[in-house]
Amino acid sequence: MAESIRVGLLGLGVVGGGVARALRDKAETIAQRVGRPIEVRGVVVRDPSRQRDAEGLAISTDASDVLDDPDVQIVVEMMGGEDPAREYLLRAIRNGKHIVTANKEVMAKHGAEIVAAATERGLEVAFEASVGGGIPVIGPFKLDLLANDISRVTAIINGTTNYIITRMSVGGADFATALREAQDAGYAEADPTNDVEGIDAAYKLAILSTLAFHARVHPDQIYREGITALEPSDFRYAKELGYVIKLLAIGKRDGDALEVRVHPAFVPAGTMLATVDDVYNAVQVEGDLVGRILFYGRGAGAGPTSSAVVADVIDLAQRIVGGQVRPSGAVYTERPTIIRDILCRYYLRLVAADRPGVIAKIAGILGEHEISLASVIQKEDVLTGEHRYAEIVFMTHVAREGAMQRALETIEALDVVSSIGSLIRVED
Amino acid sequence: MAESIRVGLLGLGVVGGGVARALRDKAETIAQRVGRPIEVRGVVVRDPSRQRDAEGLAISTDASDVLDDPDVQIVVEMMGGEDPAREYLLRAIRNGKHIVTANKEVMAKHGAEIVAAATERGLEVAFEASVGGGIPVIGPFKLDLLANDISRVTAIINGTTNYIITRMSVGGADFATALREAQDAGYAEADPTNDVEGIDAAYKLAILSTLAFHARVHPDQIYREGITALEPSDFRYAKELGYVIKLLAIGKRDGDALEVRVHPAFVPAGTMLATVDDVYNAVQVEGDLVGRILFYGRGAGAGPTSSAVVADVIDLAQRIVGGQVRPSGAVYTERPTIIRDILCRYYLRLVAADRPGVIAKIAGILGEHEISLASVIQKEDVLTGEHRYAEIVFMTHVAREGAMQRALETIEALDVVSSIGSLIRVED
Repeated sequence: MAESIRVGLLGLGVVGGGVARALRDKAETIAQRVGRPIEVRGVVVRDPSRQRDAEGLAISTDASDVLDDPDVQIVVEMMGGEDPAREYLLRAIRNGKHIVTANKEVMAKHGAEIVAAATERGLEVAFEASVGGGIPVIGPFKLDLLANDISRVTAIINGTTNYIITRMSVGGADFATALREAQDAGYAEADPTNDVEGIDAAYKLAILSTLAFHARVHPDQIYREGITALEPSDFRYAKELGYVIKLLAIGKRDGDALEVRVHPAFVPAGTMLATVDDVYNAVQVEGDLVGRILFYGRGAGAGPTSSAVVADVIDLAQRIVGGQVRPSGAVYTERPTIIRDILCRYYLRLVAADRPGVIAKIAGILGEHEISLASVIQKEDVLTGEHRYAEIVFMTHVAREGAMQRALETIEALDVVSSIGSLIRVED
Repeated sequence: MAESIRVGLLGLGVVGGGVARALRDKAETIAQRVGRPIEVRGVVVRDPSRQRDAEGLAISTDASDVLDDPDVQIVVEMMGGEDPAREYLLRAIRNGKHIVTANKEVMAKHGAEIVAAATERGLEVAFEASVGGGIPVIGPFKLDLLANDISRVTAIINGTTNYIITRMSVGGADFATALREAQDAGYAEADPTNDVEGIDAAYKLAILSTLAFHARVHPDQIYREGITALEPSDFRYAKELGYVIKLLAIGKRDGDALEVRVHPAFVPAGTMLATVDDVYNAVQVEGDLVGRILFYGRGAGAGPTSSAVVADVIDLAQRIVGGQVRPSGAVYTERPTIIRDILCRYYLRLVAADRPGVIAKIAGILGEHEISLASVIQKEDVLTGEHRYAEIVFMTHVAREGAMQRALETIEALDVVSSIGSLIRVED
């Protein structure tokens, strides 16, 4: 058999273990597709004492055993986190190695730097696994959608929050209970902040938006709201109004600017996005030629993620064999990002004194800010001490975010308003 | 600017017109992405008198103006049909030209021959547009899913029939009315045979299965049933039982063999596939690593199809510029195809005499063939002349197709059975 293609792995956790397994179990098929065998030269781990399915692998805790091994052609990074992953990737590139990475945080924050360093040296950076696990999303943007001007990306891109939301929606659980269920099922970490606050989704949206709009988008530019404030009643009202609630990651072109935001949203029931439940992910893309398309699948886990990592390795290896390495050298446009000026419909739930004229008063304030109402629901009486309160839900017509926020300040200050429950954007 | 990449177009109908428009309107962006401008050297049409948006294009009725022009590097075939498309493509390849084609019939029937001829000469054949319009499906199979063993492909792959079926399902229309609506909306042709008999879907399934299973599948090997026999009552029963009816194209690996079939099927309501309505298409793929993924979008029309064609042109042009042309040279396994031995659940609707013991008799015959019942519905009385008939619906547990067909012969011959209405497979 011909000389092998030599890879080094960084990380042997859930994803790294899955990749090592796939490279071993599918060695014959992969060799057939590449034209040469793929050989794992070494694996770098943090803690060598942890039990691992490491049969036949050269395990080391010293990153230089992979990064500085002149025989390694492709470094596959599956450590996650910003440090030391960024440093390792840049060092691997300086040493002339191609990169395959599943690291959304590093690609979202430092993708531009890493790709530029690689391009300069004629090397490739493949990162299909960084968004949507095994769902092909990076590939389509780089290839199949090239002829399109993309106007919008709408994604359910964090499996943990979608699982929690599905529990709250279907089972009527409150957030704390649903989170615990997700933790018990192994879908949420002990510290769930990254997921439930939308941080993970923002990383992925930064990567998707960069590709979709040929513009550099940093996670810091993304407006972000998590799912911790959602209450069971929001899910009940959503259902009554013909919607489901999803944590959406939205990238939208608005003239020369971009709207990039992660937040819970009302999605019309019966649409493809509304049907995406449990840990599944979906990325919906709207292009001028292709119209609306959607990609769906499991966004995490050993299998799906290693599907994407190994595909990137095979693709790169094929290109190395054929002498057809193809650094990205993408051209980016700088685009400002906006959030205060977005236009959408809103769902507003608040608790107010159960007195005549309250709805009229609130509607009046909304009207002063040029926000008109589509519907109002007043249903449950809430008794607090000697006062009677009512939960009131407003659905607005299309309004400006800035106007809505200003109206809300005024409404919140009203004597008759006890609390603002939720303000959720409606994405039709 | 650098020397252009020169393409020749065959066909300037809906798709060809869309492609010519996109190449013209997006010339600047495309040139930026390719590194050189793309120049349309000539366009071959059948009928030069038809009104066309042909501004600035060199139109000819003589195919050799494109096929034999030594300057043309890529021939883009958008004529459709088997002849003379096959001959033109082979001639273009003999003349050293790369191929981009949207022609499902030619790729389904002669793909192996065409790809082999191209590979022999170091040329590429790109055919993303032949299946699913602008939905990336060919690309993912060739790239993103490479690490997977694919066990199953389940697709809604013909927009015309999905539109008709949606009309019958949502609007309660009968087939003839729904077909007329589809024709009025421009979604069905005057002679709808290719669509409603599942022939078009079988072409696409042949292409998908060839890619998914690394096996050559010819449309003649595909079992095929169209949608013409579906009746409004089937849609009503489906709804009552928690299903929707879809025309599915299914490719399934069963050991060393393949099941490849196109037929109407019961699909559980609320699933992603069941949510695919109107002219939309979806391709669902199950792989050992990636699990279940799905691609969704418009499967036809000038925009979506030209999105795929132009992406193939850009991709090929980038590779020509970089000296990185990459003929497929795929390795195929020969696999037998089967249909009589498939296992699934069935929906059976029949009209029988409204007499005691009829259901028991039919259930008995099914039982003799080791087919057990999941549920029975008897609802509507049908009066024909002096006899009273009842429509009876049986849902079976998993059974063998061969056994079902044999049972059906016996049932049909019963005195008390007036007619077999429908036998529809259930795909969970």
